Amino acid sequence: MIHVIGIGAGDPEQLTVRAARVIGRTDVFFLVDKGSAKSQLNEVREGILAEHASGAHRVVVVRDPDRDRTAATPGYAPAVGDWRSRRADAFERVIGEELADGQSGAFLVWGDPALYDSTLAVLEEVHARGAVAFDWAVEPGISSVSTLAARHRTGLNQVGRPVQITTGRRIADGGLPAGVDDVVVMLDAHQGFTALTGLGLHIYWGAYLGTEDEILVEGLLDEDLALRISEVRAQARARKGWIMDTYLLRRPAAR
Amino acid sequence: MIHVIGIGAGDPEQLTVRAARVIGRTDVFFLVDKGSAKSQLNEVREGILAEHASGAHRVVVVRDPDRDRTAATPGYAPAVGDWRSRRADAFERVIGEELADGQSGAFLVWGDPALYDSTLAVLEEVHARGAVAFDWAVEPGISSVSTLAARHRTGLNQVGRPVQITTGRRIADGGLPAGVDDVVVMLDAHQGFTALTGLGLHIYWGAYLGTEDEILVEGLLDEDLALRISEVRAQARARKGWIMDTYLLRRPAAR
Ligand SMILES: C[S@@+](CC[C@H](N)C(=O)[O-])C[C@H]1O[C@@H](n2cnc3c(N)ncnc32)[C@H](O)[C@@H]1O
Ligand SMILES: C[S@@+](CC[C@H](N)C(=O)[O-])C[C@H]1O[C@@H](n2cnc3c(N)ncnc32)[C@H](O)[C@@H]1O
Repeated sequence: MIHVIGIGAGDPEQLTVRAARVIGRTDVFFLVDKGSAKSQLNEVREGILAEHASGAHRVVVVRDPDRDRTAATPGYAPAVGDWRSRRADAFERVIGEELADGQSGAFLVWGDPALYDSTLAVLEEVHARGAVAFDWAVEPGISSVSTLAARHRTGLNQVGRPVQITTGRRIADGGLPAGVDDVVVMLDAHQGFTALTGLGLHIYWGAYLGTEDEILVEGLLDEDLALRISEVRAQARARKGWIMDTYLLRRPAAR
Repeated sequence: MIHVIGIGAGDPEQLTVRAARVIGRTDVFFLVDKGSAKSQLNEVREGILAEHASGAHRVVVVRDPDRDRTAATPGYAPAVGDWRSRRADAFERVIGEELADGQSGAFLVWGDPALYDSTLAVLEEVHARGAVAFDWAVEPGISSVSTLAARHRTGLNQVGRPVQITTGRRIADGGLPAGVDDVVVMLDAHQGFTALTGLGLHIYWGAYLGTEDEILVEGLLDEDLALRISEVRAQARARKGWIMDTYLLRRPAAR
């Protein structure tokens, strides 16, 4: 049995009671190593294991195949397919080699495994190949999207209206999607919001949500505010060496 | 201090470790009474209090103003404004009367407070009125959307693509929104999916998610499957007297 466990987006206490219990009876944890820039993410994972794992557990580090860095923007589809099947090779190998009969394994996934994460698709591919036999289950986690809304004390949708969650690349290529007044943008390496000033949008921006480095900025998205967020972002990124940020763009509905 | 706490969408163990800790040091819980049909929701809340509250806490039931039932479809905006300000009256009264100086209160909100829930907007209105002074904070919760994806072991988005969360009314009025291949539908009293057969969509449907009554159905959304879900839904609803369901519609992306 393999558990795919959402661990929340930064605060180890965002773990659910149920996920903590599952972690407590898991034999082997597969930690996918994303390289040093993301070592703070691994620290959160290690803290969670120290707190909730049985003590009789093992940790197996899975080397992440290098993504094709020429397709540098995250969330870009074409290069993902190859990368995914190389990742499936790696998962297949550790599942086959590291789990004895009747043992359980787990992947600790940042945020909610349902949002912009490949673990579920990779496991499905490994399962479909049929070379290793296993079953799997998913524990939902608090996403960075939920955390963003909570920290800004706002809803994601307006009354009776939709919300769309999308990527920085799509905002950069196509602007604000049609037919929605609330748009959450993830995976935005290029500050797509700077091209959306002067439209009367309100922005709720957050970086390192749930961690002690958390930064929140909100307000009417004019050029001043776009510039201010870009500066805050650049400074934080320079200081820490990496950044994770996400934001909600809201067009206040006509009443 | 008022805490708005997401409690997950059915399974009391979806509570986060942090929410459990906040509950443990809260003095007064405001339970919004939604009438007998929703008594199972209140049971989940009571179970959570029995498990995590301090024992020295108090529970205050807040009578929910009757929503204008002539605007019968949930998520309908015009009638909501009035109802919201009557609800603000009720919140204002209990916050003013039931909390002594330095005491903390909490609202336990189903799922994630950020999705299709009025608690945050109502509190903001009460705060803006200025008649009672308080501060408030939000603990994100696992939404029914995250639970749906987890139970079906699928992501909400396809690689690099957006996902939209919307209401049954909007699907019924406008069909599938443009520009998105993944759409989550909530608050659908009229099975909007039945009008969307034959489009090559895949449906992931779930009712009473996270509870022992949970029902999951998925597959290619043709007329047979739409009929089957409608039947399963009608039977479950007749048996229990009420239903909560949500679904993801997916148009598999061209590769
Ligand atoms: C590959 S996606 C994974 C999302 C994750 N599964 C979730 O549920 O939050 C990574 C993106 O999530 C967002 N993100 C994740 N954690 C964050 C955090 N603590 N603060 C701000 N944004 C975060 C950023 O937009 C980042 O580019
Ligand atoms: C008023 S909204 C509240 C949503 C809640 N804040 C959340 O995060 O799930 C109620 C709608 O959520 C969905 N829902 C809530 N709990 C559910 C459950 N346990 N199973 C299926 N759907 C659920 C249904 O679509 C229902 O009409």
